[in-house]
Amino acid sequence: MTGPEEVAPQGRRRRRAPRVRPAHPAAAPFITRAIPPYEMLSEEALVSIETHAERLLEEIGLEIRGDPEALGLWREAGARIENECRVRVPAGLARTIVRRSAPARFTQHARNPARSVSIGGPCSVLAPAYGSPFVSDAQGGRRYGTFEDFRNFVKLAYLSPWLHHSGGTVCEPTDLPVNKRHLDMVYAHMRLSDKPFMGSVTTAARAADSIEMCRILFGREFVDANCVILGNVNVNSPLVLDGEASRVIRTYAAANQAPVCVPFILGGAMGPVTTAGGLAQCFAEALFCVALGQLERPGSPAILGNFLSSMSLRSGAPTFGTPEPALAYFAIGQLARRLGVPLRCGGNLCAAKVADAQAATESANSLWPAVLAGANFILHSAGWLEGGLVMSYEKFVMDLDQCGLMHVIAAGLTLDDNAFALDAFREVGPGKHFLGSAHTLRNYETAFFDAEIADNNSFEQWQQDGSHDAIWRANRRWRSLLSGYEMPALDAAIDEALQDFIARRKASLPDANA
Amino acid sequence: MTGPEEVAPQGRRRRRAPRVRPAHPAAAPFITRAIPPYEMLSEEALVSIETHAERLLEEIGLEIRGDPEALGLWREAGARIENECRVRVPAGLARTIVRRSAPARFTQHARNPARSVSIGGPCSVLAPAYGSPFVSDAQGGRRYGTFEDFRNFVKLAYLSPWLHHSGGTVCEPTDLPVNKRHLDMVYAHMRLSDKPFMGSVTTAARAADSIEMCRILFGREFVDANCVILGNVNVNSPLVLDGEASRVIRTYAAANQAPVCVPFILGGAMGPVTTAGGLAQCFAEALFCVALGQLERPGSPAILGNFLSSMSLRSGAPTFGTPEPALAYFAIGQLARRLGVPLRCGGNLCAAKVADAQAATESANSLWPAVLAGANFILHSAGWLEGGLVMSYEKFVMDLDQCGLMHVIAAGLTLDDNAFALDAFREVGPGKHFLGSAHTLRNYETAFFDAEIADNNSFEQWQQDGSHDAIWRANRRWRSLLSGYEMPALDAAIDEALQDFIARRKASLPDANA
Repeated sequence: MTGPEEVAPQGRRRRRAPRVRPAHPAAAPFITRAIPPYEMLSEEALVSIETHAERLLEEIGLEIRGDPEALGLWREAGARIENECRVRVPAGLARTIVRRSAPARFTQHARNPARSVSIGGPCSVLAPAYGSPFVSDAQGGRRYGTFEDFRNFVKLAYLSPWLHHSGGTVCEPTDLPVNKRHLDMVYAHMRLSDKPFMGSVTTAARAADSIEMCRILFGREFVDANCVILGNVNVNSPLVLDGEASRVIRTYAAANQAPVCVPFILGGAMGPVTTAGGLAQCFAEALFCVALGQLERPGSPAILGNFLSSMSLRSGAPTFGTPEPALAYFAIGQLARRLGVPLRCGGNLCAAKVADAQAATESANSLWPAVLAGANFILHSAGWLEGGLVMSYEKFVMDLDQCGLMHVIAAGLTLDDNAFALDAFREVGPGKHFLGSAHTLRNYETAFFDAEIADNNSFEQWQQDGSHDAIWRANRRWRSLLSGYEMPALDAAIDEALQDFIARRKASLPDANA
Repeated sequence: MTGPEEVAPQGRRRRRAPRVRPAHPAAAPFITRAIPPYEMLSEEALVSIETHAERLLEEIGLEIRGDPEALGLWREAGARIENECRVRVPAGLARTIVRRSAPARFTQHARNPARSVSIGGPCSVLAPAYGSPFVSDAQGGRRYGTFEDFRNFVKLAYLSPWLHHSGGTVCEPTDLPVNKRHLDMVYAHMRLSDKPFMGSVTTAARAADSIEMCRILFGREFVDANCVILGNVNVNSPLVLDGEASRVIRTYAAANQAPVCVPFILGGAMGPVTTAGGLAQCFAEALFCVALGQLERPGSPAILGNFLSSMSLRSGAPTFGTPEPALAYFAIGQLARRLGVPLRCGGNLCAAKVADAQAATESANSLWPAVLAGANFILHSAGWLEGGLVMSYEKFVMDLDQCGLMHVIAAGLTLDDNAFALDAFREVGPGKHFLGSAHTLRNYETAFFDAEIADNNSFEQWQQDGSHDAIWRANRRWRSLLSGYEMPALDAAIDEALQDFIARRKASLPDANA
């Protein structure tokens, strides 16, 4: 926190240099919630959702299109395969498979052991946004993402004490060939950060490459026994798992690594417009994928994901930070706990085109329910703009403030003698102020969360400073943060082996953009 | 909701006239929450806070400075009065007094019975911001509020289906004399709106004027038997109730009207920097005031209030939308339910100077916990900017969207056959889309909440429209809303009697600015 010499006396303001807070070794590597999750639904309501999800799996079924081995696993497990690819799962079977072997909580190891994260139970891990083709900043505007941008966002995530994870495709490095960029992305996470990260999911071969690089970094045996990488896999909702996605899930699971199984449902398009229907579908699809991972390798880690969006009545466009997905978050949090599998939710989602009030409102409407739902892995916690099409530098650091705030919320209330401050009341008494009391002096440094981007000065001071809005301050903040970046050390032999692997893989294939 | 003819086909956008939605008679007059409140603290933790609050009341006590009758009431009830004004309340006494007679839920009647609100239990009533000396809008900038502004905000609150209450001092009409403006303000609420409202609290005589005007509007006997007006009274924290505030509480209570008892605690100044201490103090002070109302007239309605703010370490300024007050909201929600008294929280609070991302983030960080805490009366739900110094036209309509969203959250999930949409899954099947399904056509109009200020169009469309941010859209929105305002009818004889009363009261005093 801020040192005492930086604190101005009441009402006055002291100018100081922009603060750069490098990721501090003392910062907690993940959130351990001291507050309970919000239990919105009754037992009866939860059973009703589970029952409808099971009916979808049994009566309609899911199709696996182009992965005979996955179909074989399901057939052996007791599902009925129809029309070559339709998997009808008897009610109860998928949950039985998952409950039998999927871990309720697991550790994803980072190369710096102090940054390993626990995923599941009362833990919440925050990761940056994922997958945008575009990036934007206040000076450069909106443009296609490059590998330079990718590296910048990995650095920014590394520098923040409020992100526990380096993420995956923090933006698409569109200046690199599609069939090889995963090698550069995984290497950037490994080299520029020492936080845990995600690997490629676009093909099973690229997933295998990502895992192979982990074997170089962590050692082959360690990787077989421990989770060191996540792969975020989308279901082709409604009720289709394409063969490549299915193989990616199996590739991660077979290596004892964790697929994040994410139905992608825009209500009214890939699912019904009614929230309960989308929720049951989402639970059914994610459950089906997590179960497939368990069939591939029982006991391998997995995360139950969801991506539920509503639709604008005015434009037909997907919307974010709306109330319907918020309600779904609360419900799916309860469903995940009953299933005994860690939950992924989206963090600071929004549809806004700029980091304005719309962006901030929508983002808060997504992050609050994610945290209170007890989500264990919160992807898209920083930078997300425009429905995920854009990774914004300014939004990234704004979102970091909200991530920091959620650390305080998750820590809950301290209720000890110091917190109750009876000695301060005895010292101060009615009608006096607490500013100079011994209790205040003893506690003020750690008392309140301090949002970096907030301007809490007087109107007059703010005007004198140039009447800037939050975007302006965020712009200064990320530039200042980046300029203070220092690369963490990496064993030279490992680095060389990684680079050698990448060079060989790149040489083995012609560049391609698919 | 939007009619079907206004909905554009997927992806395309149809231009249409700005929508003005007058407060619809079918809109619910208040929120009845179908979701449970968030129970953050254990029984043990709650008892600990209650015990510390009781120790403050007993060991330190509160001072009532200049109201011998209030001291007499407390003496008779069993408190010890020391040093002429220090009231030491034996542990348990204040809660016993309140539990004995204060209603857990009551109706505040509006002159239009369809707009009467229920305050307490599972109900939440949203009211606009209160008390700012300044107003601002995108064209006119920041300036002192006038009676014209006051009337505008009463009209805007009247027009919104998401505000249930007309509020009180929606901004200070600084162009009217201080000792008479309450007459004009109360009349404006009565004449320009038919929603429930708040009266003056600056002196007991002005509170009495406000109530007298209600007797003209509602009838003397009705007012004695029913709550028709609230008075928002601040405690001079720490632990002081000045004589005027104390008389205002007693004036409302004696008339069977509801004082809203609000400790105003900036942590580190009017209370300790630690949240638990501020929380215990806040509960003790509010409890003391609610109990005073019960001593004045047992069974009269009252609301337990709180206003807890943190402090910026950088400037010493009050901050809003920070995590510490959010945690306090959850706790005080539980305390209020245990006490059996309706709870007031603040809604869209923020410290930002403009309606930017900072304003929106901070506001959401205040509204979410207020709603999930189960607050029954949410003041400052629309318009609040700059720590309450400014009532902003643009922020007002932005906040309305969040108020609307909270209606959907509070309604919870619908879990019936239509919502689960099994027929749609049977019709559509794997890999197809739901856009044209019978279920979608039957449900899309009411499926999703539609935020007025959000732009969910494509980036290209948004650019073509002028690349505007949310402030620009909000500016258009409030102007369009105001232009559609129509004054509700009022019985001419009552109107004349009100105007006559005001004229006589004004004539009886020289103008004064205190």
